[in-house]
Amino acid sequence: MQRLKCTIAYDGTNFAGYQIQPNKRTVQGELERALATMHKGQSIRVFASGRTDAGVHAHGQVVHFDSPMTIPGAGWLKALNALLPDDIVVKEVEKVDSSFHARFSAASKEYRYKVRIAKEKDVFSRNYAFHFPYPLNYDAMKEALQFVVGTHDFTSFCSAKTETEDKVRTIYEADFVISDSELIFKFVGNGFLYNMVRILVGTMLDVGQGKIHPADIPAIIKGKDRRLAGKTAPSHGLYLWKVYYDN
Amino acid sequence: MQRLKCTIAYDGTNFAGYQIQPNKRTVQGELERALATMHKGQSIRVFASGRTDAGVHAHGQVVHFDSPMTIPGAGWLKALNALLPDDIVVKEVEKVDSSFHARFSAASKEYRYKVRIAKEKDVFSRNYAFHFPYPLNYDAMKEALQFVVGTHDFTSFCSAKTETEDKVRTIYEADFVISDSELIFKFVGNGFLYNMVRILVGTMLDVGQGKIHPADIPAIIKGKDRRLAGKTAPSHGLYLWKVYYDN
Repeated sequence: MQRLKCTIAYDGTNFAGYQIQPNKRTVQGELERALATMHKGQSIRVFASGRTDAGVHAHGQVVHFDSPMTIPGAGWLKALNALLPDDIVVKEVEKVDSSFHARFSAASKEYRYKVRIAKEKDVFSRNYAFHFPYPLNYDAMKEALQFVVGTHDFTSFCSAKTETEDKVRTIYEADFVISDSELIFKFVGNGFLYNMVRILVGTMLDVGQGKIHPADIPAIIKGKDRRLAGKTAPSHGLYLWKVYYDN
Repeated sequence: MQRLKCTIAYDGTNFAGYQIQPNKRTVQGELERALATMHKGQSIRVFASGRTDAGVHAHGQVVHFDSPMTIPGAGWLKALNALLPDDIVVKEVEKVDSSFHARFSAASKEYRYKVRIAKEKDVFSRNYAFHFPYPLNYDAMKEALQFVVGTHDFTSFCSAKTETEDKVRTIYEADFVISDSELIFKFVGNGFLYNMVRILVGTMLDVGQGKIHPADIPAIIKGKDRRLAGKTAPSHGLYLWKVYYDN
């Protein structure tokens, strides 16, 4: 058996999310279908670094699977891309040691969130950026983001439905850049809770509008109450950008 | 009656083209449906600067229609955008004189064509740029484009199915820019024949690859034979960018 690590990108628009579900079009479902075709019907389970919700995109999701087939690296890439629908692309395939696990070996993850700040509606970015054409105080947002960096209990910044017990996570980087008509948030951390990036973004947009003061962020974190933070920003602005592994 | 001029953008991916057709989803069909709703069922005919094919996008298509309703300009914009699907956006509405005609008053048109030149496949631009990851000689392409500028019979650069008798058109500008991972062609002319921009692009890519020599372009034009020019580039890279009117 050979373990393969794949870096994939997908347009989340027409998927009911990453994780396989009966009678729904999912990224995992499409990957496993392509692998079953390659393996003459044998079912091959795919393990991802984590799930993404419906509408959420991936620029660099990582998955792994085990295969009895012996194919050179470039062969896997071509074969999988030929069998996958055009909204999933395999960007890289690497042979890895059997100790590698897409989820458990991940050291950190990077998410980005695109906000279209231009006033005019744009048909071409409607599924790829959240349109938020209101004045924002960027200095206040930068200040607020600095309170997010570090090791905190992020109970206030995850869906109340989160089942994970331990809500302590470390954020290494929380920033944004303004490019053209877009504001792009970047978050790097050792792990993210359910809806965490989308709630962080919604809260930062509240800060930018003066609804929340940057200095209130520590109290929102300490309060451990989802109702203290801002709204959950919509899924279609979110990108799982990169998964980092220690080599 | 009041004549309204609308500048609209649309994502051509999920349309069977601009022009209304029975049982097909078209841009004109959606526009006329939204107008019928606003006019309590009364049918309002919409006239465009020209058709676009299935998959072709518009950044600045212009249409006009006549309405008995009296609504301020901003009211039209809001009402139409509220009734239209999210892959059509009305960008501007202006009241115009009854002598204005979206098609017959047009002085010139600008088309752009996006080619993704980066090697890697990209899920996010798959419907918005033609992926052509092969080496191109940009100098040769710039040289060839200069032979296209001017007044010529473009029989060699239109679909053999073109019914228009007069195939003489004037091209004012034919150029391209390289931005990031994209090559973007720009064509401005007093009119374009069926498939003309897509055949010009296909021919320029042949020039870039050395299959056609820039100095051969005048003979290709003079030959008045579609078979002399290059292939028709796919529809999804094409954008009706702007329609110019004399004021």
